[in-house]
Order: sequence, then C-alpha cells, then structure tokens
Amino acid sequence: MYRLYHSPGACSLAVHIVLEEIGLPYEAEIRSAKNGEGTTTPDYLALNPKGRVPALSGVPGSAGGAANLLTEAPAILFFLAASHPDCRLMPADPAGRARCLEWMNWLSGTLHGMGYGQLWRPQRVVTDTALYDAVKSAGLEIINAAHDHIEHVLSDGRDWAVPGQYTIVDAYLVVFWLWGGRIGLDMETAWPLWARLMRTVLARPAVREALAQERLA
Amino acid sequence: MYRLYHSPGACSLAVHIVLEEIGLPYEAEIRSAKNGEGTTTPDYLALNPKGRVPALSGVPGSAGGAANLLTEAPAILFFLAASHPDCRLMPADPAGRARCLEWMNWLSGTLHGMGYGQLWRPQRVVTDTALYDAVKSAGLEIINAAHDHIEHVLSDGRDWAVPGQYTIVDAYLVVFWLWGGRIGLDMETAWPLWARLMRTVLARPAVREALAQERLA
Ligand SMILES: N[C@@H](CCC(=O)N[C@@H](CS)C(=O)NCC(=O)O)C(=O)O
Ligand SMILES: N[C@@H](CCC(=O)N[C@@H](CS)C(=O)NCC(=O)O)C(=O)O
Repeated sequence: MYRLYHSPGACSLAVHIVLEEIGLPYEAEIRSAKNGEGTTTPDYLALNPKGRVPALSGVPGSAGGAANLLTEAPAILFFLAASHPDCRLMPADPAGRARCLEWMNWLSGTLHGMGYGQLWRPQRVVTDTALYDAVKSAGLEIINAAHDHIEHVLSDGRDWAVPGQYTIVDAYLVVFWLWGGRIGLDMETAWPLWARLMRTVLARPAVREALAQERLA
Repeated sequence: MYRLYHSPGACSLAVHIVLEEIGLPYEAEIRSAKNGEGTTTPDYLALNPKGRVPALSGVPGSAGGAANLLTEAPAILFFLAASHPDCRLMPADPAGRARCLEWMNWLSGTLHGMGYGQLWRPQRVVTDTALYDAVKSAGLEIINAAHDHIEHVLSDGRDWAVPGQYTIVDAYLVVFWLWGGRIGLDMETAWPLWARLMRTVLARPAVREALAQERLA
C-alpha cells in the first residue's frame, strides 16, 4: 500500500488528488511543512534527507533516504499515472508524457521553487534578514509572470493543460491556483482561462475529496 | 529530424549528449545563453517564449511558442529516451523512470534553478545590484549542499545514478560536474564517488563527441 507524507495545502495536495483519482486504499501521514515542523524532525530526515513533502513510500529504489521512498512531486505524479494506466491520468505516448513533464518541471522549478521559494522562504535565498523584503517582492514578480505564462499557454483554445484529456498536470495546477488566492491575488480576474480550467477540475469528485480531507474546501 | 537549440556548455549539453547516444542525424542551432544574447532575440522568443535553452523541435504539441517545440531539459531527456527504447537510456518500468525524474526534477529545480540561478543570474532574484553578492554567496551554499546530496545518494554503492544502467540522469550530471569545476570547486577531492561515476561517463564516445562539438574537451 502507498503511504503519502504530506502537509495540508502544500504541493503534496496534487499527489493526494491523484491518489483519490486512482481510488485504491492508501495511507496518509501529515508532516507539516509550516516552518519545517514536521519535515525537519530527525525521524523524517532519516526517511527523507531532503526534508520536504510530498514523499511516497512503496516505490522500488532509493534517493538516499529510506528504501522505497520517492520524492519530488512531478516524479511521484508521473509514477502514479504510469503505474495505473487504466485511470488515464496521462497520455500513453512519449510526446504526450513529455508535455506533462514539461509543465511539471517548470511548475516545480520556476513557479514553486523560485517564485514561492523566494516569497515564503527568503531565508533559503539570503541570510541577512534585512534583505528579505527585496527577495520576497521579486518572488512575487516571478509568480505573476509565471501565471501570465500559464494563461498564455492555455490561450490556444485547449481544453486541458495537456490537450485532449485531464492529466496529472491539471491536478498539479490546483495547488498553484489555491496558493495564488492565498497570497491575495485576484485569480479569477487576472487569469480567466486558467480560472475556467480550474472550475472544471475543482468539480471532480477526487479533487473535492482531497480538498475536504485537507480542510481546504 | 530533431533540431536542438543549445548553448555550448549550458544545461543543453545533456540533451546534446543524448542525441549523440541515439545516433540519428539531428540539427543543432547555437543560441547563446550568455547574457541572453541568443535566447532573448525576438525570433527566438516567438519560437520559445521562455527564452531559454535547451529546446527541441520535432515533438508533437506546444508549450505556448512554436508548435512542436519541447522545452525543459528533463522533459526533453525523457522524451528522447522514451522514443528510442532500443537505446536503453532509461529503465522501462514506471518506478525506474520515476527515479530518473526524481533526480532530474531536483537537479533542474534545486541545483540549477536555485543554486546556479542565484550565483549566475542574481538579477532574477533581486533588483537592487547592491544585494547581488549576498544572493550569490547563498547560491554557492545551495550548490555545495546539493553536491553533498549527490555524493550521499551515490554512497550506497550503486554503479550509476539510477542503479543498474547508464541513464539520461548520468548525462545530465555531466553538466553540473563541469559547472562545478568552472566555478572553481575542487570536485575530485570533495565528491569522490561522483568523480568516479563521471570518469566512466566522460569516457563514453557519445559524451566525448558532444563535448568536442561544444569545444569543451
Ligand atoms: N522540489 C520539490 C519541492 C518540495 C517542497 O519544497 N515542498 C514544500 C511544501 S509545498 C516543503 O516540504 N517545505 C518544507 C520546507 O521547505 O522546509 C517538489 O517539487 O516536490
Ligand atoms: N528549467 C529549464 C531552465 C533552462 C535554463 O535556464 N537554461 C539556461 C542555460 S543553462 C538559459 O537558457 N539561460 C538563459 C537565460 O537565463 O536567459 C530547464 O531545466 O531546461
């Protein structure tokens, strides 16, 4: 059985959604990412030296921590979709899968890592607390520019993030949609195509269930 | 035929290596990433609004620029390996592939995006030039910590980055190995397991050929 290490409302929500889409039983263990409360304890670091969520146990191999623990949201999302092809959470062909990875690598590295990394964890970027405000405001600019890019990609009339079907990318986009609202951006007005996509995605039973479990509904 | 947009010595080198491993004819177009000289021209931005390399044309779908252009190094590496399974550049099973993606997402987002992003492009992180030195020195710390993590993962006695076979991850690691040397880190002494892996990888004919073409030999 898979076990998901997650923090309510964190990027691990995307994996939580996809586990609900798959519909098999799984275990969920909360490891709060807030100030690293649950992610920097000795027992968690022994499991996952990166000290982050999401992590999924039950996957062959190791990334330097516990055997069978898989880290990095895009890798976990790919793994779940590829292991459960009957759930159709990703195209089957190399190009379709690469389009999912193109989205997810950029969302994880640029929007999450750089944008929110600077806004929410400026201590990772500079040591001097006097510089935090400068780092945070530049982070907010990266976030806004990334939102513009999402809207631009959606502007070719596509129905889903990767045209043709609902994928793990649409589930991952829910995270950033909610975060944008949380930091006070007027998401509906500024990025209407993304808003339309999210209305469809947020209506899915699996998405509603994951949000309810994380008390985000 | 694939066309690779790349900059000598940039992260696009990993894709260049993998194209040489595959051995089919391809076109290569230099777009210098140095100060964005070749990556921020109007014609390139029309093709690839992200204004970065690598990008590979000849892949169905679009990421908001030209049709059939694929961006993000990990996505391109996955696409090439998945499209040419006979070249055995990636395991065939979901878990093995996810282990490749786990490495690559972290290398792209954390070591490249955050570490080298701060060290080489502090103007992306803060606007005030007076803060550049603080941002750069924190970037160098991220790089060193990431190198330590690479060494730690390799310390379980594995032969390749993903145990069992040479993969696209080993090719991608060549980029960061060379960058570490370029910024003056004593790579051989500080990270001997990584050094040993790189000696094997750098001896591969395809790697030597890509390095020679980029005048890095
Ligand atoms: N590159 C990782 C980043 C994971 C990450 O940073 N997760 C956050 C929660 S959204 C976390 O665990 N933060 C705790 C911390 O940074 O200490 C991924 O894409 O999964
Ligand atoms: N997330 C992208 C990042 C690509 C990237 O930043 N490439 C660099 C070269 S190593 C570049 O094009 N830099 C030009 C610039 O930043 O203006 C990936 O992993 O492919």
